[in-house]
Amino acid sequence: MNYRMLGYLLGLILSTEAALLLAPSLVALIYTEPVWPFLITMAILLLVAVPLVLQRPKNTRIYAKEGFVCVALGWILLSAFGALPFVLSGAIPHYVDAFFETVSGFTTTGASILQAVEGLGQSVLFWRSFTHWIGGMGVLVFVLAVLPSAGDNAIHLMRAEVPGPTKGKLVPRMRHTALILYGIYVILTAIETVALCLCRMPFFDALVSSFATAGTGGFALKNLSIAGYANPAAEWIIAIFMIIFGVNFNLYFFLLIGRMRDLLKSEELRVYLAICALAVGAVALNTAHLFSSAGECLRASFFQVSSIISTTGFSTVDYNAWPAFSKAILVLLMIIGSCAGSTAGGLKISRCIILFKNVLREFRHMLHPHSVNVTRLDGEPLSDDTCRAAANYFTLYMVLVFFFFLIVSFGGYGLESDLTAVLACINNIGPGLGVVGPAGNFGGYSLLSKLALSFAMLFGRLEIMPMIILFSPSTWRRR
Amino acid sequence: MNYRMLGYLLGLILSTEAALLLAPSLVALIYTEPVWPFLITMAILLLVAVPLVLQRPKNTRIYAKEGFVCVALGWILLSAFGALPFVLSGAIPHYVDAFFETVSGFTTTGASILQAVEGLGQSVLFWRSFTHWIGGMGVLVFVLAVLPSAGDNAIHLMRAEVPGPTKGKLVPRMRHTALILYGIYVILTAIETVALCLCRMPFFDALVSSFATAGTGGFALKNLSIAGYANPAAEWIIAIFMIIFGVNFNLYFFLLIGRMRDLLKSEELRVYLAICALAVGAVALNTAHLFSSAGECLRASFFQVSSIISTTGFSTVDYNAWPAFSKAILVLLMIIGSCAGSTAGGLKISRCIILFKNVLREFRHMLHPHSVNVTRLDGEPLSDDTCRAAANYFTLYMVLVFFFFLIVSFGGYGLESDLTAVLACINNIGPGLGVVGPAGNFGGYSLLSKLALSFAMLFGRLEIMPMIILFSPSTWRRR
Repeated sequence: MNYRMLGYLLGLILSTEAALLLAPSLVALIYTEPVWPFLITMAILLLVAVPLVLQRPKNTRIYAKEGFVCVALGWILLSAFGALPFVLSGAIPHYVDAFFETVSGFTTTGASILQAVEGLGQSVLFWRSFTHWIGGMGVLVFVLAVLPSAGDNAIHLMRAEVPGPTKGKLVPRMRHTALILYGIYVILTAIETVALCLCRMPFFDALVSSFATAGTGGFALKNLSIAGYANPAAEWIIAIFMIIFGVNFNLYFFLLIGRMRDLLKSEELRVYLAICALAVGAVALNTAHLFSSAGECLRASFFQVSSIISTTGFSTVDYNAWPAFSKAILVLLMIIGSCAGSTAGGLKISRCIILFKNVLREFRHMLHPHSVNVTRLDGEPLSDDTCRAAANYFTLYMVLVFFFFLIVSFGGYGLESDLTAVLACINNIGPGLGVVGPAGNFGGYSLLSKLALSFAMLFGRLEIMPMIILFSPSTWRRR
Repeated sequence: MNYRMLGYLLGLILSTEAALLLAPSLVALIYTEPVWPFLITMAILLLVAVPLVLQRPKNTRIYAKEGFVCVALGWILLSAFGALPFVLSGAIPHYVDAFFETVSGFTTTGASILQAVEGLGQSVLFWRSFTHWIGGMGVLVFVLAVLPSAGDNAIHLMRAEVPGPTKGKLVPRMRHTALILYGIYVILTAIETVALCLCRMPFFDALVSSFATAGTGGFALKNLSIAGYANPAAEWIIAIFMIIFGVNFNLYFFLLIGRMRDLLKSEELRVYLAICALAVGAVALNTAHLFSSAGECLRASFFQVSSIISTTGFSTVDYNAWPAFSKAILVLLMIIGSCAGSTAGGLKISRCIILFKNVLREFRHMLHPHSVNVTRLDGEPLSDDTCRAAANYFTLYMVLVFFFFLIVSFGGYGLESDLTAVLACINNIGPGLGVVGPAGNFGGYSLLSKLALSFAMLFGRLEIMPMIILFSPSTWRRR
């Protein structure tokens, strides 16, 4: 383990967080709210980070293990320090609650322990949603985009942070790839903000809602989430942008450089859009009797489906009151998630496609043991390693779902609430069903459950491996 | 497809069922109940079966595909005809209900649509539980044990019917293997019957309860299941025998021939017993406040845990009223199930062990891509095919759980009831939670749901592949 380099990178991450805290400080100044909770947090961050960054190591080489550990530890520390403004400002008095809320922010989950948000300060709410925007694209990716010094070993960091079975590099240099991805991210966020402003949403709300959409997070400024605006046009725009942010960002890059062919070749995109269409149709038919007009029914179905499949977690209706069939579809979408290489969570469509093709191949193998079967994605053959990794990822994912479910059910609210609480956290969605439905929150769970769910969010966002490697004793054993 | 041989084998299966119906007919004569429902069913069976059996094909060669199709079709037909006595006797007026109940019997599930069983005739109840005993060991295995004519291709039939990743053959000849397994089965059933009689349970009840235990089925003669006897000694005996019937029968063979070493080497047995012990401990601690004495608490915890992990489904208390944590443990045990090569359902312990080792291997591969990793079970290396098959089986299993859950949730009773209904059926347990808990039944579900759950039971009992191959269009396409 290259401790020096690990410390240096963690220092960079925490310095970055200190810099990012300038944004909510500015908001506090504008709205004449107290700035000191942010300033104190910045001071603490710099006190820890500066000594680490100054000790720049001679040996900057890092391997897969260091990459995983750095990303896992980085995310935990980001949340641990990012929770301070909530505690210091008094918005969330208990530290574990604030930690939960911050993890929920950075991991773009959007699960909240707050009963009501409308009484809170604008600067605190801004920071809460800004963490979505930072976490969506990845903090390490940001560090790589800004700093040229991270070097070429950065592939290990990026691989550990960018979700899904996807090719990491768009262009030969890691840093340029990160810059391109962040550029697309900023432009799409800006377009959504403008579009929402055009629908008469106040600028602050439009910006903050766009942060939450872009990161597929789901924290809103209203107690009733997006329903609080009673603005159908804004609902359509947000619903469409949730779908957009669930697409692999590589495809937007192909679009930008005119490689339409690569865009159309994407099986993942086609399956993603097909699942969305099917789910919207099924939910709309199943909930038609609850709405006064077909347009309203379609809007609500489309919004909720795109909110769940993109793992955002905004809501315009309380789908917890929907029929069991529609709720079952939403639970299924929670698990599937969106495309690899997007800001969304869940298993990811491409992984589901690989899993499906694995099963087909197994059948062929069973009936014709001596035939040669090649699994292809987007026309290109997949390696046995990729197929096996997807299957084992799914196993591990389900084991973790059961593990966290067992912890949460200890003093929990029954299978529906407890299981969907875990699914909503590990898939980085936010609301589940039952007591954690769109009209409820996670505040009633015990400290143990809140901590477990915080880690479920981190496991989900970082796709499990980095967190397990961090907590594995063998990682820390000296040779 | 060798249609002649397929027809011949199906004819053998149905003739066997006609012969087995002699048992409930005898019970009807003893209790002076109407015999004609059984006689008419036997007549119909022979009318269909005899022409098929008489056309003995010249080419008796069958391949994997025919083996799967024969087993899948055989089990559906067994249930379709086996349901007739329930309808004819008036015990279950609707055919779909009777089909559900019979599938539940043969697949050793024990899920029931009956509100009350105590008013029904003894012969009908005998047939209901006798199907557990037949289905537990497998009908094809029985045919193979009785008839020498099935030939050496029988390995394909046995492989399709005997659950779990296990070695099919104990001795070089298939028929002898089947005979040995059936011998162990009969002897263990007899011992349990005698033991229960010694606890002052009436002989008829002891015999029928032993059928249900041996097949890990769960149909009882009392509305309150085993709680209806209020007989603590009998509860202990049944609980122990449920554990016993969840063990791989090969191990009893090793015990018989004095190969204690092979018995102790079994990782599956050790993991199985460890999970049982852990689960009993956790449930007992979590439910202690519900019982008046520690002995009572331990008995109830042990009984329910062994009932669920062995996928039997008997109950001595209404565990639906237990705390969420204990219920979560039971749901987990439902999925895990017992040992491969036993009469139990679920994923099977050995498959879970392989899945766990797959994941460990994946980690080693991630951290050290060039190292060579071999997965071992009982000290012997597992082939890549076996590891991959287990992972893909798990994927397919979860896909089916979601698929049946979606169907059942259509007009269903909410996530807890609908999901555990599917888990209770696909894992061949019987009762789930909520409306299908030990105090409830499956009678309230729609026809569609009952049919879907019937097929879920068949998918579970035959370990998915045979059923999918039966329903796959490519199986029936002419070359």
